[in-house]
Amino acid sequence: MDRLTIVKVGGKVVEEKELLNSLLDQFVRVTGYKMLIHGGGKAATALADRMGIETRMVDGRRITDEAMLEIVTMVYGGLVNKKVVSGLQSRNVNALGLTGADLDLIRARKRPVGEVDYGFVGDVENINTRELRMLLNENVVPVVAPLTHDGKGLILNTNADTIASSLAVDLSNYFKVFLFYCFEKKGVLSDPLDDNSAIPELSESEFVEYEQSGIISSGMIPKLQNGFKALHNGVSEVLITNPDNFSKGRGTRLIRQ
Amino acid sequence: MDRLTIVKVGGKVVEEKELLNSLLDQFVRVTGYKMLIHGGGKAATALADRMGIETRMVDGRRITDEAMLEIVTMVYGGLVNKKVVSGLQSRNVNALGLTGADLDLIRARKRPVGEVDYGFVGDVENINTRELRMLLNENVVPVVAPLTHDGKGLILNTNADTIASSLAVDLSNYFKVFLFYCFEKKGVLSDPLDDNSAIPELSESEFVEYEQSGIISSGMIPKLQNGFKALHNGVSEVLITNPDNFSKGRGTRLIRQ
Repeated sequence: MDRLTIVKVGGKVVEEKELLNSLLDQFVRVTGYKMLIHGGGKAATALADRMGIETRMVDGRRITDEAMLEIVTMVYGGLVNKKVVSGLQSRNVNALGLTGADLDLIRARKRPVGEVDYGFVGDVENINTRELRMLLNENVVPVVAPLTHDGKGLILNTNADTIASSLAVDLSNYFKVFLFYCFEKKGVLSDPLDDNSAIPELSESEFVEYEQSGIISSGMIPKLQNGFKALHNGVSEVLITNPDNFSKGRGTRLIRQ
Repeated sequence: MDRLTIVKVGGKVVEEKELLNSLLDQFVRVTGYKMLIHGGGKAATALADRMGIETRMVDGRRITDEAMLEIVTMVYGGLVNKKVVSGLQSRNVNALGLTGADLDLIRARKRPVGEVDYGFVGDVENINTRELRMLLNENVVPVVAPLTHDGKGLILNTNADTIASSLAVDLSNYFKVFLFYCFEKKGVLSDPLDDNSAIPELSESEFVEYEQSGIISSGMIPKLQNGFKALHNGVSEVLITNPDNFSKGRGTRLIRQ
């Protein structure tokens, strides 16, 4: 099988121009098939602030009411996506921006209201990579925004780490998939206050221990859950890394037990 | 050659949910290859207002400074484009949203500063429909937002009528192209105050006469200039129409002298 590199970029890397440029410079050098999935960083919150709309988060997850749905559609699907696409085109990479609605790539179900009503948040239900694979074969580089659709005309807000993991699992039926979660830290830190404490290798049982002892917390938990899910479902390699290290294969490598 | 229907939707049709739904319902019934190009309506101005950013227009054209460029990228590339794409997907049409940066579809040059500095506005320089034609052959329906890129990382704001005409001309090398400019009026009106005064057929010399006598004015002028340009450069048919009439082939038909 051919090699496919899937890079998820998030956090400060999509917020800060220099970090994004550094990531794109590295990404261009990746050989073989490749694609990129981006988060939204703080741009959605910043736009909401300017529009006088309150941002509400529960456990690091955004509550997406109708006004916030318009904002994330604009920021993720428009502003951030086109910044990445035009940045790649300027580096002679034939990028194509996508949301889950485009080409019916990712269908999701609006999350049922439980203890928390997350609003227009979608849980992934179906992945359809038929046209995407055809495009990869034509050397097109897909750039996926963290938005899905319900097939009934509704756009939904979906976590970018989950989208990266879901696409990686589906595409591992056709490619040898390498999944990189790329953010501003060198990897999963054993000491959150020490940027040089990245754990080189992490198994799922070690992750559970770190989680229970509180060393790994907040946004890193769903990222690692998604990473292990990918690793256990056909993806060849999962690495948590940053723009400087990802092309060197450095960072925290998830390992099977 | 196979038939390709290109529908440009603008004005109130992209602003008002009912008109857009009516247009999409008609569009779904079009047989053969098809694609859609949308304008932005007043949504960009509305968002600018909410952000406290002033909208400046010269002769009906938007002055696009850096803040306005972010707004049109969000509104055209995100909000409006994904509304149309998800609306078509809900009608079982495999839509794909594109800007000129995606797949390097439309390169443009930033308009030189003359009497007016339009800011980040792009004049079309190069059309590349290679991947788009491949996608049409797979029954994908492209949905194009009025944004282009300069190939150096910059997104540019480009008139949707011009984009429709430029794409129609290029694609007429491969398809028998029918171009529909679809807005809220029944066609080109001989009396701007009478909605039932649509001119059935219009030649370029008649257009020039109407323009000189002031009967045709403002936004209709560039639309018709683009329409005649398309008609003189390989496009089979150009019709100015509205959502109700376009599937019936009614409206103002542009004719060769």
